[in-house]
Amino acid sequence: MATPVDFYFDFSSPYGYFAAHRIDAIAKAQGCVVEWHPILLGLVFEVSGGRPLPAIPMKGDYARVDVPRTARFHGIAYNHPAKFPVSGQAACRAFYWMAAQDPLLAQRLALALFRAYFADGRDISSPQVTVDVAAEVGIPGPALAAALSDPAVKEAPRSATQQAISRGVFGSPYFIVDGEPFWGNDRLDQVERRLAEGPF
Amino acid sequence: MATPVDFYFDFSSPYGYFAAHRIDAIAKAQGCVVEWHPILLGLVFEVSGGRPLPAIPMKGDYARVDVPRTARFHGIAYNHPAKFPVSGQAACRAFYWMAAQDPLLAQRLALALFRAYFADGRDISSPQVTVDVAAEVGIPGPALAAALSDPAVKEAPRSATQQAISRGVFGSPYFIVDGEPFWGNDRLDQVERRLAEGPF
Repeated sequence: MATPVDFYFDFSSPYGYFAAHRIDAIAKAQGCVVEWHPILLGLVFEVSGGRPLPAIPMKGDYARVDVPRTARFHGIAYNHPAKFPVSGQAACRAFYWMAAQDPLLAQRLALALFRAYFADGRDISSPQVTVDVAAEVGIPGPALAAALSDPAVKEAPRSATQQAISRGVFGSPYFIVDGEPFWGNDRLDQVERRLAEGPF
Repeated sequence: MATPVDFYFDFSSPYGYFAAHRIDAIAKAQGCVVEWHPILLGLVFEVSGGRPLPAIPMKGDYARVDVPRTARFHGIAYNHPAKFPVSGQAACRAFYWMAAQDPLLAQRLALALFRAYFADGRDISSPQVTVDVAAEVGIPGPALAAALSDPAVKEAPRSATQQAISRGVFGSPYFIVDGEPFWGNDRLDQVERRLAEGPF
């Protein structure tokens, strides 16, 4: 039985976006599957005391250099969004609504939303933009538009985030393999070895 | 003319310890030299608002998993020190006193102090331990012991740290190549490409 990888991310996290491009290929090469869990990092920060990168003295300036450079390092398209960070509420709701019906299509939606925001400059905090992006990967717009204001769907991002917090997740991206935590796009080398060799 | 690498670190930083094992070989392979700059992260945190890892909710717990695992990932000896973090004052003073006479011997001293603390469980915040470790790499104990209480030597760590802060350094390890900053042991892959290919 292949080890599953739990992949936690916020739709407004550039490093989460980079990891989203890389994690499936890394897991697949080891015969493993990835379960995607978008979360709301704002709720996590209420518990962890963390803050969005741009708000942190010195680190914010550094991130403005490191994020686009890391994108180039991995060969991933990146254009820093005019509005950053944005709320991932609409994107998360769309994801969990879709995941309940078709998890693989939900992953394609997540990647399309990430690209829309970090490569194409579209504001995915807008429910209409989320619906448009979903339509581009073959998800019917009217059904999604209705779902986005369904109370059960609206609750999904918060409960997914609470569950993540209870597992120790404090940042994006964050991976859990057999209970073992790995934080950051820059831990994918260790995730890869963990999947290939077991605990090291 | 080969590009020099400025390497900033705190003697109480495990990720700085890992980088200290790796940076010289990476730079040397590209024909580059490394200038080592131990600093006092406590003074940096006064400006950046940063805190030592163990004091940060959730991240502290994660570090207790990540630090020894990262040591194993790189094949570097690591035994978590009973007292952590400790002050790097004595180690920094010894380093800068030695660097003024023999920069390469100062680097060997830095690596020996790192190993003494993170592999051998010796408390390098003690001036006597610092003198003992220095003696083991061939630095005369009595001369160093006298230097450690010399006012000019005592000032060196603080002024090195102020200079680092003025260059934007906010963590350990931190690298600057041609004015370009790289933060973290996990950015050494990008440092390596930067040295090999120039800006990317």
